[in-house]
Amino acid sequence: MKTQNVSQKLISAHLISGEMIPGTEIGLKIDQVLLQDATGTLVMLELEAFNLKKAKPEIAVQYVDHNLLQTDYKNMDDHLFLQSAAARFGFWFSRTGNGISHVVHMERFGRPGKTLLGSDSHTPAGGGIGMLAIGTGGLDVALAAAGEPYYVKMPKIMGIKLIGKLPDWVSAKDVVLEMLRRYDVTGGRGYILEYYGPGLKTLSAWDRHVIANMGTELGATTSVFPSDEITREFLKQEEREDQWINLEADSGATYDKEIEINLSAVEPLIALPGSPGDVVTVREVSGLTVNQVVIGSSANPGLRDFWIVSQIVKGKAVSPEISFDVNPSSRQVLENLMEMGALGPLIAAGARLHQSGCMGCIGMGQAPATNTISLRTMPRNFPGRSGTLDDKIYLCSPETAAAAALTGKITDPRDLETILNISYPQWKEPAKIKIIKEMLIDPNGGTTELIKGPNIKTLPLFDELPDTLEVPILLKMGDDISTDGILKAGAEVLPLRSNIPEISKYSYYAIDPTFYDRAIENQKEYEGYCVIAGDNFAQGSSREHAALAPKYLGQKFSIAKSYARIGWQNLINFGIIPFEFKNAADWNKLEQGDILRIEGLKAAIKNNDSITATVAGKDIKIILTYTISERQAEIILKGGVINLVKHK
Amino acid sequence: MKTQNVSQKLISAHLISGEMIPGTEIGLKIDQVLLQDATGTLVMLELEAFNLKKAKPEIAVQYVDHNLLQTDYKNMDDHLFLQSAAARFGFWFSRTGNGISHVVHMERFGRPGKTLLGSDSHTPAGGGIGMLAIGTGGLDVALAAAGEPYYVKMPKIMGIKLIGKLPDWVSAKDVVLEMLRRYDVTGGRGYILEYYGPGLKTLSAWDRHVIANMGTELGATTSVFPSDEITREFLKQEEREDQWINLEADSGATYDKEIEINLSAVEPLIALPGSPGDVVTVREVSGLTVNQVVIGSSANPGLRDFWIVSQIVKGKAVSPEISFDVNPSSRQVLENLMEMGALGPLIAAGARLHQSGCMGCIGMGQAPATNTISLRTMPRNFPGRSGTLDDKIYLCSPETAAAAALTGKITDPRDLETILNISYPQWKEPAKIKIIKEMLIDPNGGTTELIKGPNIKTLPLFDELPDTLEVPILLKMGDDISTDGILKAGAEVLPLRSNIPEISKYSYYAIDPTFYDRAIENQKEYEGYCVIAGDNFAQGSSREHAALAPKYLGQKFSIAKSYARIGWQNLINFGIIPFEFKNAADWNKLEQGDILRIEGLKAAIKNNDSITATVAGKDIKIILTYTISERQAEIILKGGVINLVKHK
Repeated sequence: MKTQNVSQKLISAHLISGEMIPGTEIGLKIDQVLLQDATGTLVMLELEAFNLKKAKPEIAVQYVDHNLLQTDYKNMDDHLFLQSAAARFGFWFSRTGNGISHVVHMERFGRPGKTLLGSDSHTPAGGGIGMLAIGTGGLDVALAAAGEPYYVKMPKIMGIKLIGKLPDWVSAKDVVLEMLRRYDVTGGRGYILEYYGPGLKTLSAWDRHVIANMGTELGATTSVFPSDEITREFLKQEEREDQWINLEADSGATYDKEIEINLSAVEPLIALPGSPGDVVTVREVSGLTVNQVVIGSSANPGLRDFWIVSQIVKGKAVSPEISFDVNPSSRQVLENLMEMGALGPLIAAGARLHQSGCMGCIGMGQAPATNTISLRTMPRNFPGRSGTLDDKIYLCSPETAAAAALTGKITDPRDLETILNISYPQWKEPAKIKIIKEMLIDPNGGTTELIKGPNIKTLPLFDELPDTLEVPILLKMGDDISTDGILKAGAEVLPLRSNIPEISKYSYYAIDPTFYDRAIENQKEYEGYCVIAGDNFAQGSSREHAALAPKYLGQKFSIAKSYARIGWQNLINFGIIPFEFKNAADWNKLEQGDILRIEGLKAAIKNNDSITATVAGKDIKIILTYTISERQAEIILKGGVINLVKHK
Repeated sequence: MKTQNVSQKLISAHLISGEMIPGTEIGLKIDQVLLQDATGTLVMLELEAFNLKKAKPEIAVQYVDHNLLQTDYKNMDDHLFLQSAAARFGFWFSRTGNGISHVVHMERFGRPGKTLLGSDSHTPAGGGIGMLAIGTGGLDVALAAAGEPYYVKMPKIMGIKLIGKLPDWVSAKDVVLEMLRRYDVTGGRGYILEYYGPGLKTLSAWDRHVIANMGTELGATTSVFPSDEITREFLKQEEREDQWINLEADSGATYDKEIEINLSAVEPLIALPGSPGDVVTVREVSGLTVNQVVIGSSANPGLRDFWIVSQIVKGKAVSPEISFDVNPSSRQVLENLMEMGALGPLIAAGARLHQSGCMGCIGMGQAPATNTISLRTMPRNFPGRSGTLDDKIYLCSPETAAAAALTGKITDPRDLETILNISYPQWKEPAKIKIIKEMLIDPNGGTTELIKGPNIKTLPLFDELPDTLEVPILLKMGDDISTDGILKAGAEVLPLRSNIPEISKYSYYAIDPTFYDRAIENQKEYEGYCVIAGDNFAQGSSREHAALAPKYLGQKFSIAKSYARIGWQNLINFGIIPFEFKNAADWNKLEQGDILRIEGLKAAIKNNDSITATVAGKDIKIILTYTISERQAEIILKGGVINLVKHK
C-alpha cells in the first residue's frame, strides 16, 4: 500500500463507492451526523417523509444554537419540535442554549478517524481533531442519517506545511485569515486543506478548530489536521482519552498542491466588510472608529479565545461608544470561564453577556447601527448577514477585537503594549476542566410523537423533469453570490425555515427585493423560470432553503460560470439543474428577461450530453454543460431526491 | 401642622400648585426623572422640539433596558441616538445592557424624600425606599425634564398595615399578589398605596421594591414605603448611606382607607394567564405542565430573588422540557451573584443566562411556544404581550418559579421539602457588595450632536381642535383594554417607537388586525374617527405611543366608562378628548360604525361643560362628560401639549 496523507487515510477507510480520483464521485460511509436548528427542522421533516425508524450513524446529534431569540411562538415551537423529533428518530438532543453545534460536538462527541456530516457549513471544524468532517445540505444529512453513503466529488488534497511559532498578539484566527488573504474565498475549492509540519505542535486542538472552521470560507471541501499528542491531551481534558487514536500522514506522503506558512511571520490580520476573503493587516485600517465588538462563534470558540480577551480588558472598561457583546460558545466554556475567574473581568469591563449560541453570527440579534463599524471574531461577513443591510463587519482575532473594545478604534493589538501598557497574557491549557453533560438528552430520552406548532408545515412535492422548458431569466447575477443573497439570513427569515411557502417570499431578496412578486407574476405566463450567475455561485452557508425556496417559486435551472460545492449539491438534490456556460463569455450575451428554450432535456440528462438553449427573438444559442454523476442524473429526472426516496 | 403619613409628607414638600384634596389637580416639583429606551427616543425628540438646553431636575437618567435584541439596524441606531441625546440634554446614560431602569436607579440614584418621574409604568418601584415615584407618559417626563411641574389628580392614600412575618417559601411577590387577589387590577386606582406597621421590619428594601413595583398592576398612582433603618442599611450597602434620611408617618397619621395584611398568613400565589389580577393559590393550579420558566424583571430584581432560585436548583438540573431563562436585572446583580458563587448553580442547572434587561417581560424575546405554559417572576401577563398571541403566562415568586423549573409542573414550593428534600434557603442580606458604576456615563460625557439613524423621524404636528366633529366609531371595545391592546408590544413593534408613521400601523392591532386598513380607508370620507370602550380603558404601560399612534391615524376622542390614569393623561397630552359616558349604560346603545356628531366643542371645553353627541340616522343622544383641569382644557384646544409648548 502506498504512503497516504491523513485525508487519504480517512477517505479510504470510509470509501463505499467510486475511486479516489479527484473530480470523480465517491460514496463515503458516515459515522456521525449533526444538525442545527436552522437546517434541522427541514431535515427532521425529511426523515418523517422517509419514515425513518432510528438514525443509523454511530452518533447523531440535534443542536439548537442558531435561533434563540424567540420573538414569537415560532422559534420555541421549533425547539419543541426538534426535541420530539430527536427522541423519535434516535438523535441526541443538545438543549437550547447549550452551545454552538461545532463546539459542543468537539467537546463531547468528535473522535479522530471518524467521518462527520453536518447540515452546517462550518462542520469542517471537526477536522481540528483528525476527523473527516463535511458540511452539506440537510437532505444529504437526512440521507446519511438514514444510512445512505454521502456522495461527493473526490477532492484534491492541499498540503499546508506549518513552520515556526506564532508571535505574541497573533493567534490561530490570523493563520486562517492569512490563508484567506492568499487564496480568497475560492482558493480552497475542490480541495481538502490538510495541515502538517513542525508548526503544528504549537497549535492546540482549539486553535486547529479555528483554522479548520474557516476553511469553509476558502471554499474547501473540508480541512484536516492529524490526530497527535495534542489531540490526545485535548481528549484527556474532555475526559475521553480512551477515544484517541494516532492518525498522521505516512512519512513521504504527498499532496496535490503544497504550500507553506511560517507562523512566526504571521501578522494581526482583518477581513474587510463584505467578504472573508478581503484580508489586510490590521495596521492598514487602524484608527477607524468602532461601535461594536462581538466575541464568540464557532470561529473563535475555545476557552482560550475568551480568556485572552478577559485578560486584556481586565481592570479596564471598554470605550464608551462600544457595545461589547460576549457570546460564550458553549455552556461548558461559560462555566469554565467562571471557574477560572475570567468571566468577572469581562462583565466588569462592560460585556453584554449573551446566552451560548451563534447569535449575531447568523444575524439573530446584535445587528450593528447604520453606518457603523463592527469587529467580530466570527467567520463570515457577507453583506447584510448581520441583520443590517449596509453593514460594515470586520472579522478578526480575539486579540484584535479586544484592542478595539478598549480603544474604540481598529487597533493593532501589538500596540496595546505601548499605548495601554498591557503585556501579552500567556495562556496555558488547563489539565483539568469542568465537564458539562447535563444539557444533552440521550437518544432514547423522550416521546415518539412529533410536536408540530402551526408554523411547521409538511414538505411541498414537485413534478418530474419535463422534456421541454421555455422559461424567462428572472434574475441575472454576477460573481460570488452567496446563499445569504439567494435566501436572506437574519431574524426575519430564520424563523420560517420549517415553512417553505412563507420562506420562499425571501428568495433572492437581498439581491432584488422585487423578486418574489416578479416570480408570482411570472407563474401566470410561464411554467417556471431560471437565473444566471457568474463564478462561485451559491457560496456560503449550507442552507438547502436556498435551493428549495427558489424551486418552490418555479426555478427550473440556473446557469453559472461556476458553483460553490454545497450550493451546487443542494440544487441537484431539489431537482434544479446547475448548468454551466460552456463559454463563460456567453454570460454577457444574456439579459434578464430573455426567454430561454431547451428541448430534449430528458434524453440529454440521461446521456450526460451538453444542451443548447435558444433565446426567443434573438439569434443566440448558448451551450450548456454540467458535470453530474449517473446518480445525480436520476435525481434530476425525478424532480429531486425526495421523489426518488419516495419512489423506492 | 397636622399629623401626616409618608405620602402626605412627600407631596406637601413638593407641592407647587393646587391643594391636597383628593381628585383635584396638583402640581409637583420633580427632583429626578428617568427614561427607558422604548419611551425615551420619543421624549428626546420632544426635548429637541422644546429646544431644551439642559435637564433641570437634580438627577436625569436615560436607561437602555427594553429593546436589546438588535434584529436590525433600528435598535442600535436608537441606542446611539439616546446616548447622543443624553449628552446633549444633560442626562446620565446607563449603557445598553447595564440593567433595568428601576433596578439601576435604586442602586445608584434613588433617594428617600425625593420625587421621581419616569416614562415607565413601573417607576413606582422607587417607592420602596421612601420616594414619591410616579410612572407617566413620556411627554410628562419631557416637561419635567424641562423644569415644569408634574400635574396629577391628588390621590387618596390607602394605608396597608403589615403584621406578622412571611413563612418559609413565601416572599414579597406573594404579598403584592395577595393585594391583587383582593383588589384586582383596578383596586388601587386613585390611590397611593402606603405600607406601614410592624411587619415592615421583616421586609428588605428590595422586598419593598417588589411590592411597590407591582402596585402599578393594582392601578395605583404609586406605592410608598417609609425610609427607616432598613432603608439606611440598603443605602449603606450601596455605599450611599449619607443620602439616607428618616421619613416615617407621624404617629397618629391616618389614611383614606385602611387595610391589613398578616404576612404570616400569606400563601404562595400565582396570577393566571391574561391578567395580573386573576390570582389564585399555587396549590389550586398545581400539576399543570410547564415548558418555560423565566427569572428576572423589575418585579423580582434583587440579589435575593436570584440567589434563592440558585440555592433551590443547586446540584440539580431543570426538567428536560423546561426552558429555564435567567435575566439578571442589573450588571451589579450579575457580578454579585457571581462573586457569591450563586451564578454557577444556575448555569449548571441549565439556565439560559441572558444579558441584563427587561427581555421577555416586554416581549423582546423569550416568547413561549404555542399552547404551552410559562411561569415568570415578571409583573405583567396581558394577552399576547409575551410575543405569542395565545400565550399562557403565569406570574409568581422566584420560589414558585424554581419549583416548576425542577419538577416541570406548577408546584407549590413548600412541597419541595417533601418531594425533593430541599430545605428553604435562608437569605441574609450581605453587609458589603460589589458596586458597579462603570457603565454609567455622566451627564457631561459626550457629543452634543444628535445621532439620528434613518428610522428616527421628527415628530408629526397636529391641528388645533375643530368646533364641530362628525366621525365614525371605528372600534367598540369592552372593559380593561390595555395599552398592549391599543398599541402592540413585542419585538415587531418596539423598534418602531421613534417612527410614528410606521408604528401607527399597529394601532389597536391586537384587538382588530384590520384596524389600520380601516382607519386609512376612513380618512377618505371623514376627518378622523373615535373609539368607545368600557371600564379602565388604556390600563397598563405608560407608552404614549398608545395615544400618539391612534392620533396620527385621526383619532379625535374616545368614550369610555372609565380610564386608567396614565393612559388618560397621555390622551389629553396628545389632544385626544377622553370623554366618559354620563350614563354607563349608553355604551350598549352605540355600535361600531355609528357616526357621532358633536357641535360647539370649543366653547364646551373652554367652559368645562358636558357635551351631547348625536348618532346619525338614529334617535340617540349620548351625554359625554369629562373631568379635566383648566390647564388640560387648554392642551386639548391647542391640539396637544407640543403645540402648546411650541406656541409659548
